[in-house]
Amino acid sequence: MKWWGWGDAEKSFPMEDKPELWPWIRRRLALPETRLRPPVARDRLVIPRPVVNAAFCEALEQGFAAARYTSDDDARLHRCFGKSYPNLLAARAGALPRATDMVVYPASHDEVERLVALAHEHDVCLIPFGGGTNIVGGIDPLASETRMIVTLDMRDMNRLVSVDPHSQVAVIQAGMRGPELEAALQAKGFSLGHFPDSFEFSTLGGWLATRSAGMQSDAYGRIEDMVLSMRMVTPRGTIETRPVPASSAGPDLNRMMCGSEGVLGVITEATMGVHPVPPHKDYRGFLFRSFPEGVAAIHACWRAGHVPSMIRLQDSNETELAAHMKAPAKGLAGFVQSLVKRHLKRRGYSAPCIMVVGFEGSAEQVRQERSATLPILKKFGGFSLGNSIGDTWSKDKYNIPYLRDYVMDRGVMCDVAETATTWADVVPLYDKTIAAVNARFAEDRGAGFIGCHISHSYETGACLYFTYAAAQQAGSEREQYYSYKNLITDVFMQNGATLTHHHAVGVEHKPWLEVEISPTGLRALSALKRELDPKSILNPGKLLG
Amino acid sequence: MKWWGWGDAEKSFPMEDKPELWPWIRRRLALPETRLRPPVARDRLVIPRPVVNAAFCEALEQGFAAARYTSDDDARLHRCFGKSYPNLLAARAGALPRATDMVVYPASHDEVERLVALAHEHDVCLIPFGGGTNIVGGIDPLASETRMIVTLDMRDMNRLVSVDPHSQVAVIQAGMRGPELEAALQAKGFSLGHFPDSFEFSTLGGWLATRSAGMQSDAYGRIEDMVLSMRMVTPRGTIETRPVPASSAGPDLNRMMCGSEGVLGVITEATMGVHPVPPHKDYRGFLFRSFPEGVAAIHACWRAGHVPSMIRLQDSNETELAAHMKAPAKGLAGFVQSLVKRHLKRRGYSAPCIMVVGFEGSAEQVRQERSATLPILKKFGGFSLGNSIGDTWSKDKYNIPYLRDYVMDRGVMCDVAETATTWADVVPLYDKTIAAVNARFAEDRGAGFIGCHISHSYETGACLYFTYAAAQQAGSEREQYYSYKNLITDVFMQNGATLTHHHAVGVEHKPWLEVEISPTGLRALSALKRELDPKSILNPGKLLG
Repeated sequence: MKWWGWGDAEKSFPMEDKPELWPWIRRRLALPETRLRPPVARDRLVIPRPVVNAAFCEALEQGFAAARYTSDDDARLHRCFGKSYPNLLAARAGALPRATDMVVYPASHDEVERLVALAHEHDVCLIPFGGGTNIVGGIDPLASETRMIVTLDMRDMNRLVSVDPHSQVAVIQAGMRGPELEAALQAKGFSLGHFPDSFEFSTLGGWLATRSAGMQSDAYGRIEDMVLSMRMVTPRGTIETRPVPASSAGPDLNRMMCGSEGVLGVITEATMGVHPVPPHKDYRGFLFRSFPEGVAAIHACWRAGHVPSMIRLQDSNETELAAHMKAPAKGLAGFVQSLVKRHLKRRGYSAPCIMVVGFEGSAEQVRQERSATLPILKKFGGFSLGNSIGDTWSKDKYNIPYLRDYVMDRGVMCDVAETATTWADVVPLYDKTIAAVNARFAEDRGAGFIGCHISHSYETGACLYFTYAAAQQAGSEREQYYSYKNLITDVFMQNGATLTHHHAVGVEHKPWLEVEISPTGLRALSALKRELDPKSILNPGKLLG
Repeated sequence: MKWWGWGDAEKSFPMEDKPELWPWIRRRLALPETRLRPPVARDRLVIPRPVVNAAFCEALEQGFAAARYTSDDDARLHRCFGKSYPNLLAARAGALPRATDMVVYPASHDEVERLVALAHEHDVCLIPFGGGTNIVGGIDPLASETRMIVTLDMRDMNRLVSVDPHSQVAVIQAGMRGPELEAALQAKGFSLGHFPDSFEFSTLGGWLATRSAGMQSDAYGRIEDMVLSMRMVTPRGTIETRPVPASSAGPDLNRMMCGSEGVLGVITEATMGVHPVPPHKDYRGFLFRSFPEGVAAIHACWRAGHVPSMIRLQDSNETELAAHMKAPAKGLAGFVQSLVKRHLKRRGYSAPCIMVVGFEGSAEQVRQERSATLPILKKFGGFSLGNSIGDTWSKDKYNIPYLRDYVMDRGVMCDVAETATTWADVVPLYDKTIAAVNARFAEDRGAGFIGCHISHSYETGACLYFTYAAAQQAGSEREQYYSYKNLITDVFMQNGATLTHHHAVGVEHKPWLEVEISPTGLRALSALKRELDPKSILNPGKLLG
């Protein structure tokens, strides 16, 4: 991955086929003339010299093959930052107040046990590292840390250990990345069905550690819903649960390990429920007259017991953004499109909201669910756009994070904020958040973008996922960002919603965790931390403390 | 409830209409002549004088109305035992080595907070008490406890606080019992859909504290799956989570409170997902040629994505027991039945296994699910018995626990053991358990009964629920019982299954908890206990320690 941005270094957001996008963003954010602000050049970066704990290094040398660890500058640089907006601000400016001091690549559960024991013995910090995609500061070495920091990159623990096709469970090593995990499972006819936005780079261990939710969580559940058992190495030994479908033997330790963000232990392996690869897929687009009508349609699907594998509703602002990502149709096609647009406008779709709906399963299941769902969508004004928009969305779904790099290159602040609340509060919370951010835009430069989509929904409520952008305030980029981040998070918390639906806590959400789980709840988690990691060597300063 | 047995003191197992049952049990267990061994008379019971912590009692007097607490002998007696077999052995013998010293009935969350604070201050033990139905020793005052023990009976915290019909969530006080909870919800058109065998007496708080699973968990999930938020009072303050559909803000504290069995805090209230009362119900019976074929049918339903609201398969032994609970048909009906029986026998149903299947929902949903499911059952040899058996089962479903009192009155050891494992291991584990217990019967008196049913199933596996019985060994009833209990539990644990699927840990399963969750896992739970309840006043000796 890029050290200064998202994804493959070779790859950038495909802007060539979207001639209208950048001009629209400029207008929308009232940006002054486009001025390129590229990241600092690699050769101008000064990577801090590593802190060395000699006794630890000596023990490492004796116990591990030389290929298993490195203090190489490039290896360290790539593990100094996650992908939060503040991470990228710092990386792009070449501000590296603290680097990780070493990278270790354990190859087995036993090696992780030996590493954690060594680190505990020598008071060396360990940061478990999967794909490096965390956007809440969950994998950053903290500037205040004076001890040696070792990033424990799980990339070599990437085996599909076993599949039991009759029980539909698979034992998977934590370092497996999305694509390799799906390829290995699909070769045996199965899928985990977990597709977060970070899928191309993130790992099973990262998903578990952050309680991730994928694009098809409506059908297959959140990552924690798929777990049968886990192994997690702590300085006090390994916690290991039994791979059983359900139990009432005390509090569920799987749910204590899920969401522990590397502060309680290093997840090395999990037994996960899997399902057959759905042979048929049908993705479709719909337009709604308003966000509340789209929300009502999703709600109605849940109430009818017919929920597509994926249902994703974008508000009118995000829909406008999406519309500008399309190449403009020319000639006859363009003429027909403009007629359709005029027709829709007359029928009340003047600021339409796009919904992408996906059905997956056997041909019969797809047919049944589709015929049950489409009348519900229609009832709430859903205007069918057919399959092409669904296919377009499916093709581009992992590209969006690259867009942030493009706009940051051009002086734009851009971030996301997500939460979940019960159905009765979904639209009110949406309204309040949009209003608060628009008011702040008005106070600031008078221009900015905030859009929202519903990415996941449940029987009792849904996730609201906001994207916001404005021109950067040169010289105070961080302060500007936090004024928006704090504003939005305060709106969530004051209205009873959750601090984070699927991005986890890291450092960015830490200030609100006590409000989220109550002071005594925080005290309980802190007690777990003290017991399992008494020297606080594991991912210090994240989630807790 | 009876202090010496199950359920209403006025009610006993309806044996009058089952003339074949007791003779069959006698034959099957090779019981000598029926000799009545009734429980000790109430007036021969000596209830130990209460341990009194004078400072606590004084503070209680000052802070609480007199109606909120009592040291009355009857009130204390009824809260000295749960309903485990060892509990009933002791109660029936009048062996009361330790009674609870006082019963308090808090009326609000605030009163629970004040009580827990007082108890913490004065080092007085608190045992949270719901319906008193626990069968693993989860609510017993322990003989070794020298401090004052107060049972905190939650019966007055029995309000449905609010229902949000749009989000389908309800805020419910923990002391609400099954029937009153369902009545209050159903008056508003909703149901929690949680119907454990103990439903008539047990409470929401008890269900949460023990991670209970109801008869319709296949459709509505286990109790922990229905929780949005909880309030739990600990000596360190109240843990309170947010009523949201999902979150990734650290480990899920709801799942830490669920299954905590009163040792971490007193659950006072929860926000639960509810669903509309299903307007249509259709319960049906089927016969299968063998238990493995029935298991294969359930498995196939899950694989096809068509799982009835309830699916319950009894092995041939339990089916034989159930058959002897029916009044024998006479005259023409009897003649026809015997013809059918002969016909079935010729077709391979010589030791048939009964399955009860329930469909619930709208008329259309019931019709759809039924027409999807029945061909699957048929494919595996399911022979339809029509609706009457389903209705009979539904009528009798809460009566079975009363049967234990009847047979204990007549010198029979009788208990249950339950576990869960993945599909590939369901039949092998069933075989091993049955073989081990039958071998023990052979070693002992050469006769005994063990049967099994599948009560709950999942994508990845199922629960096996065994019932076993033999003639009591007079004078060593407890030792006899534990020799079977330990045997069965060891078989579960040695074969990778879970210690308990829905009965929780209490004291009876404690010896195996470390094997279940690993030594480090147990250490983590113990750290929570020490932090939240540093003086170990909450339900001491249960689950942990």
